[in-house]
Parts: sequence; structure tokens; C-alpha cells
Amino acid sequence: MQQLSIGRRVHVRVPASSANLGPGFDTLGLALSLYDDIWVEITSEGLEVIVEGEGEGEVPLDERHLVVRAIRSGLEAAGVQAPGLKVHCHNRIPQSRGLGSSAAAAVAGVAAANALAGHVLSTADLVQLSSAFEGHPDNAAASVMGGAVVSWTSTPVDGTDPQYKAVPIPVHESIRGIALIPSERASTDAVRQVLPNEISHIDARFNVSRAALMTVALQHHPELLWEATRDRLHQPYRADVLPLTAEWVNRLRNRGVAAYLSGAGPTAMVLISEELDPQLLQEAESSGMRVLPLSVAGPVQTEVLEA
Amino acid sequence: MQQLSIGRRVHVRVPASSANLGPGFDTLGLALSLYDDIWVEITSEGLEVIVEGEGEGEVPLDERHLVVRAIRSGLEAAGVQAPGLKVHCHNRIPQSRGLGSSAAAAVAGVAAANALAGHVLSTADLVQLSSAFEGHPDNAAASVMGGAVVSWTSTPVDGTDPQYKAVPIPVHESIRGIALIPSERASTDAVRQVLPNEISHIDARFNVSRAALMTVALQHHPELLWEATRDRLHQPYRADVLPLTAEWVNRLRNRGVAAYLSGAGPTAMVLISEELDPQLLQEAESSGMRVLPLSVAGPVQTEVLEA
Repeated sequence: MQQLSIGRRVHVRVPASSANLGPGFDTLGLALSLYDDIWVEITSEGLEVIVEGEGEGEVPLDERHLVVRAIRSGLEAAGVQAPGLKVHCHNRIPQSRGLGSSAAAAVAGVAAANALAGHVLSTADLVQLSSAFEGHPDNAAASVMGGAVVSWTSTPVDGTDPQYKAVPIPVHESIRGIALIPSERASTDAVRQVLPNEISHIDARFNVSRAALMTVALQHHPELLWEATRDRLHQPYRADVLPLTAEWVNRLRNRGVAAYLSGAGPTAMVLISEELDPQLLQEAESSGMRVLPLSVAGPVQTEVLEA
Repeated sequence: MQQLSIGRRVHVRVPASSANLGPGFDTLGLALSLYDDIWVEITSEGLEVIVEGEGEGEVPLDERHLVVRAIRSGLEAAGVQAPGLKVHCHNRIPQSRGLGSSAAAAVAGVAAANALAGHVLSTADLVQLSSAFEGHPDNAAASVMGGAVVSWTSTPVDGTDPQYKAVPIPVHESIRGIALIPSERASTDAVRQVLPNEISHIDARFNVSRAALMTVALQHHPELLWEATRDRLHQPYRADVLPLTAEWVNRLRNRGVAAYLSGAGPTAMVLISEELDPQLLQEAESSGMRVLPLSVAGPVQTEVLEA
């Protein structure tokens, strides 16, 4: 196995993402213009992890750190070894808010490993490796590919690992986002547990049509974003555990705005192609939410700083 | 209300359609190059209906005839009256086979009325009026708009009529269809009754992802048609009542071919961008199925023959 040269150093900038986009549960993802930066350097031995910004002082600075685990996964897939690592994270994506910070960390780590190894992994490899940390590819694929993605999972019956796949779809240039971010966090696992095991066939086909429509709205028909973000698969069940978010999603939707629960929340995301009433946004801020205008982001970016 | 001139005569050519396309239950539709032609003439009184081809001698030649009912609906919506009607149908779309013959008849009638009235109805009007006859817009919208469509239904809580909507999506030029048409018929109502009232959340999200993917496969990625036509919402439940179709769908899918149950069946439809093993198609014919190569069709066409 090839040993990486001491001193080799890369920088990765990875975008946040919003998953589900209403009806597209575990399927649709959108990269957004809020970025984590990481710098990874090959050292002679050991592991040093520095975290600034979001998560600072809260996450373990050792092999348990998600970025480190993702770097290890990427290095192994690329068939290279690092004698030691120095990892410097500058995080801007708020954590446990439904903005894909975990997926971004996984993507950043895998992409850094790939850059260190000389870009031997494909985009499909990056999606597969980074999605495996969460078990669904919607956020990770968006952070890898940028823009909007349609993702899916194939689970082999032979017990081998799930296959995570995604294709990008072009996003209409007029579409941008506004994140309404509550101060409270939500655990993705906890918010997944409120989902029912069964739903009605009528609700399933309702979401099938809106998820299909959402791909069209994103590409060609921003005026259909409201209809295309209707959902009966997860948001009705999550409203009870995320009451402030549910209130704001409903309040915005009742005014014709395409708002939805971003990922597992608690962020309420708005997708718009026109102006939003500033009074509404002021009220959201007054109710304790951070209001963050965002544009659609491109793919994860890597640069080799020292060869 | 405006009275139409006696002797005014129009011709309508309406394409067949395939609905669902695997995962897109009551959502996705595709217009196909098999056409019914109708000629409608304003007469001084009464109703004369002539049916040739498919359905000849089987359907009532009076006000109960679906084309006639659709013409009446279209005339009323257009705000015009006809003292009498002569309706001549030349049908090529096989009936009760899952190729959208009923939707095509409804579209043909509404489009004929619109042509007679001077094209006062919009495409959205045509979708709404023609979909109301079946209660879902997937086939009708495809026959109205041509190509592939994403359709959806909004049901007002105030008890007013459901709203049927659709948007067209461009289909990759390499994609074409092959219909495997059994000699037996299937009743859409009967084949809808075998569907369960509830399905698992896992199956629902499975179809959500594939329906979204299908919109992308149709537009940009024909190589993903197989994955994008996977379904857990209706075909597993219908296999038992349509055993020959299920056998062929499985046989083709096991060879990597994107086959699915067209509408409520019994036609098995194949979407391909490459050649299909002619041996397989010969075997399908030997098992009693009609094998019909089809291309993607354009929208319903109308021409005014006599002003």
C-alpha cells in the first residue's frame, strides 16, 4: 500500500445541504452556500485534530471524530496510508439543525483523502463512502455533487453493504433558499423514530407525485415549488416534536411560500424565486430563529496546497 | 350560448399512453405512437356515432359513448352548443389493455369540442376536463401534452371537484417503447381493488426515490431506466391477478430490461434506448402476446376540416 508523503496538505470546502425538500424523503437533496473548510496534512505520526467554529469544544478530537473517520475510509478506499495526520476544521454549518453538517463532515473527510491520494476515487465512490456514515445518500450526495440531487439506495439481499447512488439535476437559476434555524437542536435518530411503520397507499402516491414534480419544479418550474414541496410522509408526524418549526412551515405555506422541514429539522427551509415579505422574516427572528439567506451551492471543492 | 354552425367538422388524432412507468403510480404518463382518429361534424339534429376498429360492435353508439360524453363536456366548458352531432371514431388503441384507450377517448372528445368551438380552452382545461372521466390525470395528461408528463391531483376539502394538473418533461431522444399486449383484457377498477390500503413507510420512500429518478432517467439518463422503473406500490400486488404479464415483466427485468406493468395492465411495457434480444420478443409472441414497437408521441392534434 502506498505511503503518502509527509508534508502533503490539502484544503477542502464542502457545502451544507438540505434533504427531503418536502416529499423526497431520503431521496432529494440540495447543496447550499454555507461551507465547512478543512485542511488535512500528512504528518510523521499520530493524530492532531483542531476544531474551530460550530462544534468547537463539543466533539471528540481523536479517531472518533467524524471527519477523521471519513478520512480513514477514503484513504483505505484509495489504497494509501498516512503515517500521521493533522486535521484542522473550520465549521460554519450549524450542527444537529437539519443542514447536513454530518454528511458535510463525511464528504469533507473522504474528499480530503481522495485529494491526498491524487484523486483516484470517482464521484460515485465519494457518494458511496460518505453516504455510508449516515445510511442515506440525500445530504451526502448533495454535498459531493452540488446543486440538487436525486438519490436512492439499493440494499443487496446477500447481506453486503447498501449501495448509495445519486444523479445531479440542474437547478433553475432563480431559485434560492432561506433557512430559519431554531436555536434548539434535533437528533436525526430521535426525529426518525416518530415516523410510522406504515402509511396509507393514498399518502404514498401523494408523495410519489410531488417528489416527481419537485424534480421538474427545481429544473424548469419554480412557480410550482409550493405544490412540489407538499409532503405526507414525514412532516405531519414530526410536527408534534418540532412545534416551532411546524408553526413556521405552516405559517409560510399558508402564505404561498414553499417552506418545508429541512432534513430531520429543526430548520425550516424556504425555496423561493421571488422576494419574501421581510416582515415575516423579522417575526421569525423575533421568535428566536436565525434567518439565513442561502444560494444553491456547487460541489465539494478540493485543492492541493503542498504536494 | 353560441350555437355552432351546421357542417363545421374537425378531425382529432390522439395518442395512446402508458401510465405509472413503474414507480409513478397515478403520476407519470408517456404518450405513445398508436393513435385513435375521430371526426366530429355539427349536424342539424340528433346524434350519430360510428365506431370502426378497436371497440367496434362493443360500445354503445349513443350519448353513453365516452367520446360523446367528452365532446359534451368540452362544448359546455367552451360555452357553445351543437344542434346535432355526427361522430366517427377510427380506433387503433386496444381497449382495457393498459394503453390509455379510455383517456384517449376522453381527450379526443374534449379536444374535438375545443376545435369546434374555436380553440377557446387551454391545455390545462383539456387536462382537467379529460382527467375527470377517469379520476386521475396520468394517461389523459400524456395524451393531451404528448411526451412524458408528471401529473398530480389536488382534492379540495370543500367538496368541489378534484383539480387535475400536469407538467410535460422532455424525453431523451433515444428512448422508445415496446408493448407486449396479452389478448386478455383487464378492468382498471378490478385491478385497482387488489391494492392494499396501507403500505410500509420503507416501500413508500422506495417509490418516492424511483419516481423522482424516473423523471431524470427519461430526460437525461436512459441507462438508469431499469433502476428508475422499480416499484413496490402496485405491481407486487397485481402480479397475482395478471400472471402472464408478471412473468414477462420479471423475465425482462431479470435480463436488465426496463419492463413494467403499463397502467393497470395487462400490457407489459418496455422502455429502451438500445436493441432488445429478438429471441425474447419471439418468445413473447409465441406465448400469445402482441409485440408492438412504439415511439414517444407528440400531443393530441386537431384540424378544422370544414369551417
